[in-house]
Amino acid sequence: MKTISLLGATGSIGIQTLDIIRQHPDSFRLSAFSAGRNERVAEKMIAEFNPALVSVLEKDTADRLQSNFPHVKVLYGKKGLEAVAVHAEADTLVNAVIGSVGLEPTLKAIEAGKNIAIANKETLVTAGHIVTAAAKRAGVHLLPVDSEHSAIFQSLQGEQEKNISRLILTASGGSFRDKKREELKQVTVEETLNHPNWSMGAKITVDSATMMNKGLEVIEAHWLFNLPYDQIDVLLHRESIIHSMVEFLDRSVMAQLGSPDMRVPIQYALTWPDRLPLPDTKVLNLAEIGQLHFQEVDFERYRMLYLAYEAGRTGGTMPAVMNAANEEAVAAFLDRKLSFLQIEEMVERVMEHHSPVPSPELGTILEADAQARATVRSFLFRT
Amino acid sequence: MKTISLLGATGSIGIQTLDIIRQHPDSFRLSAFSAGRNERVAEKMIAEFNPALVSVLEKDTADRLQSNFPHVKVLYGKKGLEAVAVHAEADTLVNAVIGSVGLEPTLKAIEAGKNIAIANKETLVTAGHIVTAAAKRAGVHLLPVDSEHSAIFQSLQGEQEKNISRLILTASGGSFRDKKREELKQVTVEETLNHPNWSMGAKITVDSATMMNKGLEVIEAHWLFNLPYDQIDVLLHRESIIHSMVEFLDRSVMAQLGSPDMRVPIQYALTWPDRLPLPDTKVLNLAEIGQLHFQEVDFERYRMLYLAYEAGRTGGTMPAVMNAANEEAVAAFLDRKLSFLQIEEMVERVMEHHSPVPSPELGTILEADAQARATVRSFLFRT
Repeated sequence: MKTISLLGATGSIGIQTLDIIRQHPDSFRLSAFSAGRNERVAEKMIAEFNPALVSVLEKDTADRLQSNFPHVKVLYGKKGLEAVAVHAEADTLVNAVIGSVGLEPTLKAIEAGKNIAIANKETLVTAGHIVTAAAKRAGVHLLPVDSEHSAIFQSLQGEQEKNISRLILTASGGSFRDKKREELKQVTVEETLNHPNWSMGAKITVDSATMMNKGLEVIEAHWLFNLPYDQIDVLLHRESIIHSMVEFLDRSVMAQLGSPDMRVPIQYALTWPDRLPLPDTKVLNLAEIGQLHFQEVDFERYRMLYLAYEAGRTGGTMPAVMNAANEEAVAAFLDRKLSFLQIEEMVERVMEHHSPVPSPELGTILEADAQARATVRSFLFRT
Repeated sequence: MKTISLLGATGSIGIQTLDIIRQHPDSFRLSAFSAGRNERVAEKMIAEFNPALVSVLEKDTADRLQSNFPHVKVLYGKKGLEAVAVHAEADTLVNAVIGSVGLEPTLKAIEAGKNIAIANKETLVTAGHIVTAAAKRAGVHLLPVDSEHSAIFQSLQGEQEKNISRLILTASGGSFRDKKREELKQVTVEETLNHPNWSMGAKITVDSATMMNKGLEVIEAHWLFNLPYDQIDVLLHRESIIHSMVEFLDRSVMAQLGSPDMRVPIQYALTWPDRLPLPDTKVLNLAEIGQLHFQEVDFERYRMLYLAYEAGRTGGTMPAVMNAANEEAVAAFLDRKLSFLQIEEMVERVMEHHSPVPSPELGTILEADAQARATVRSFLFRT
């Protein structure tokens, strides 16, 4: 029996994590979760999973929940998130919050000796050097939840790090993979949110269309698997059936495949190194699919991916700045304040504007993050 | 440093095994090999690898080699094969002889505590229950060399047997994959030997065209991975890039991919659980390949595969009988005594003619094998 605390229970990954816990009552128990703003959903989750601790975003939500569920401890805000992250009963923290808010609670959880099932890209993107060093010090595991990193992680089971020659992250190409760069000028928010393979949140779906999502994954892979950027490639694979691959120095390539279902990598992070059935997920039928397609990535077409490699190679505060600028720019796009291609223009301008600090401490990262957001806002104000 | 003895040094797998030993003089040493009839090649190999023991098929070849290489022990025939298999200096026997002649030396090597890199399908097909039990008893590993079984073996690293739901062996479909059954009536030996993906010996290339090769692999997989036939599937995959796959009970599928180069699985069997570089093998470039195709197997089109599943499920002496009948029928085809489709007719007739003995001992298997060959010859005589 594993006891799990969950940051971001009401998001896409959070809900699927709960579904896995629901399906395996003999294997998993939920001891604590955070639920953001969604009070109704939080109420249902408390009733179903009976956790010891719940955290929400705001005080009044917390007060109301507390009076409805007197036997549950209800907290709110940043303190609440951290309490969930370090909850004493939990062995494993699933970090499924969106954005850089996931960073600090994750560090606290690592220090508290929890294994981290990491669905929050920004944690590693902005502070990979701190998080991986802390995990090493604490002797805890960082277990990837993203389908790509899970595929790599699964491909590395029983293998030795010294024998890896290359990681190959596959990319569907997002909503606009069949559009030329020219055609991206006019695309709408609605078109952007219509992803061909995966059902995800709005921010991630936009990141998938710009390929910033893949860029963040490249940086995350760099930290998770301790490899230089020259050994991390991206391959276009429209069907998203091969979730990613590892090439070894004998040129043997190991890959993990499956029908698109995020519950598979989420569950693997929780069962690793064991596996459990996942009865209602679809069996992969390659004969039915018939063909898998592969294509090189064009870094001019997908400029965001180029920027992400640049940010990763530059290191220091640059990935945090890129990520913060992207979060703000995507929010502005979803608010109809920027066009689709202006997202990447904005990110590039903010990156050019930033003088990276090498090996930054947490405070410096958070400052750079805030500074980048302010720069986006000032640019937005001026446009 | 691993010391290797090699049965079948002058065949396709044997030559590639020597190439791997040649490329890694710090990792591998050849202590003994068997070379069949090819005296010239054997001479070159002795000069290059300086083994302690060599065995050839016939006495006069052995006598000539012995006088040319007085410092090497030269034997011949069945005794010679067995001496190579159990050679005291060797840790690992690579069994790369073709046909059921590989069985007895392999059992001797297992009893002598050698790990077996097993490229000889017939060993497991005809006596899987004996060989796997002996390996278990002796605490030695059976390391697959076939690209399909190596792919499965690699996919199983770090995994637990209880979590396997299905093995998926891929099949190129052989030389005639684009031909209908009707069109197979007139195909020639030369057409049959023209395999699209792999360069192999004549017997295996014919078996690939009839899919008996895949059938033997299914039976071999049954024994190597200890799974019932219902959990072993075959999938047509014309490019032979995904070498085989394993589906786990969470529906996650692990696969091993690579350019067609038998040296990769041969080397893996020798380096396992480690890997070594293989400098001149081709890096897999999926973008260049562009597409991978998959298709269900039609058991009416590929009747041999149906027969192999039948033989496997029947068990006892039936796989040995099927295999012996196939060896004789293929030889008759290569001798222009049978047409292509008559190979499978012959195998089916011999199987129908046989009353299988359950859990046979080695002697019973060898008798059934001899009986099946005699039956083929009597049928050939009558036609």
